[in-house]
Amino acid sequence: MGKVYIVGAGPGDPDLLTVKARRLIEQAGTIIYDRLVTPAILSLAPPRSQCIYAGKEEGRQSETQARILDLLLEHGRQPDTVVRLKGGDPMVFGRGAEEWAFLIQHGIDAEIVPGVSSAVAVPALAGIPLTFRGVATSFAVATGHCHDGENTAWESYAHVDTLVVLMGVGRRVSIAGRLIAGGRDPSTPVAFIENGTTDRERIVITTLQEIADDRVAVEAPAVMVVGQVVTLRPAVKTAAANP
Amino acid sequence: MGKVYIVGAGPGDPDLLTVKARRLIEQAGTIIYDRLVTPAILSLAPPRSQCIYAGKEEGRQSETQARILDLLLEHGRQPDTVVRLKGGDPMVFGRGAEEWAFLIQHGIDAEIVPGVSSAVAVPALAGIPLTFRGVATSFAVATGHCHDGENTAWESYAHVDTLVVLMGVGRRVSIAGRLIAGGRDPSTPVAFIENGTTDRERIVITTLQEIADDRVAVEAPAVMVVGQVVTLRPAVKTAAANP
Repeated sequence: MGKVYIVGAGPGDPDLLTVKARRLIEQAGTIIYDRLVTPAILSLAPPRSQCIYAGKEEGRQSETQARILDLLLEHGRQPDTVVRLKGGDPMVFGRGAEEWAFLIQHGIDAEIVPGVSSAVAVPALAGIPLTFRGVATSFAVATGHCHDGENTAWESYAHVDTLVVLMGVGRRVSIAGRLIAGGRDPSTPVAFIENGTTDRERIVITTLQEIADDRVAVEAPAVMVVGQVVTLRPAVKTAAANP
Repeated sequence: MGKVYIVGAGPGDPDLLTVKARRLIEQAGTIIYDRLVTPAILSLAPPRSQCIYAGKEEGRQSETQARILDLLLEHGRQPDTVVRLKGGDPMVFGRGAEEWAFLIQHGIDAEIVPGVSSAVAVPALAGIPLTFRGVATSFAVATGHCHDGENTAWESYAHVDTLVVLMGVGRRVSIAGRLIAGGRDPSTPVAFIENGTTDRERIVITTLQEIADDRVAVEAPAVMVVGQVVTLRPAVKTAAANP
């Protein structure tokens, strides 16, 4: 029997892998990776390893998830080091915990390797801290994706200091509208960070009202940050521009 | 002129440092570190480097913070690599963003290096995912520490799926009471993870009501997790017990 490591790949830069993630990738026989894992990270895998893409196409998530579980079982039963590689942290959305529980139920040795969460790191590297004394003492992270995004009680998040929404581009109009309906000030600043930490990073600064009115063009993938911390960006941005 | 790197040290295990953090520590001339940075991580510093403790004693935070800013200025102005090392992620509480902005205002080159946040990793490694399909699609992170903990509108967090409180041990009775006052079910399960990811890790499973009644003994440092995800632990715990 082998072992399956459910590993966070961080926000994209190979330098932001953990030491343990890097070592496991370099030793892996099989890597099963998601859409947000970057080529630079996959290039660390040994030449003889097998890299299997397991990203999800919109509308076919359930089918793909069943296939991923099959793949995990099939490879987990081989005498091999299997790395299940996920963007960001494996336990922040992305069903890492489900895969973990599934493997254990099937008697396969599995271990979680936490990673740098994109929810925190992408805003930070773009010059937006999620907390700042006197401005925000707490933050929340939610997903706008699929059924989860539909069922989220967005009104419950109207009064958290800083709200980060991952995979929220497609539902941004509805999310902004529901936050306003929940009592959030429509003038609350919002940042979208498209393609965070990559060469194609683009930052859009706007307000909840403008988003609710569908006047803001953004492309996925983007991290959405709602709250006064967005206004801190000018104070710290010079540093983010450093190589 | 040198450069100051404001670096996340992760939850404690040197294997959970980022590749970049490890390299910077190994090259540092000066390391200015907080209370939660572990000896195993500090032992990676080169023998000739200067390691300066900058942890805060309860009740003397402001004084200590002024001294830290002085230290950052003094060392940042030398032709040296200065690593400002913080437990977890440097931008999740802990004033990382304030120090960053301060250095930039003083013309000193500074860069943020995100780390693995203890708020996510400590529960995950203890078998508690913060999100799980059908159980929790979002989470919030707040601090119970000092003035921030006093001023937090805990009632606003009563209806988030999963709430993580860092540095909340001292105020746990008040926090639990305010969450219940805000409408959270008193029977909501709560986990405290003391000394997470270390040999001395201890997990206490309880409810909001028991905490509000001051019937739960816990010692700092501990990560507090409030929500139904706590009940998932038996399903995934075997994996956390793996070396």
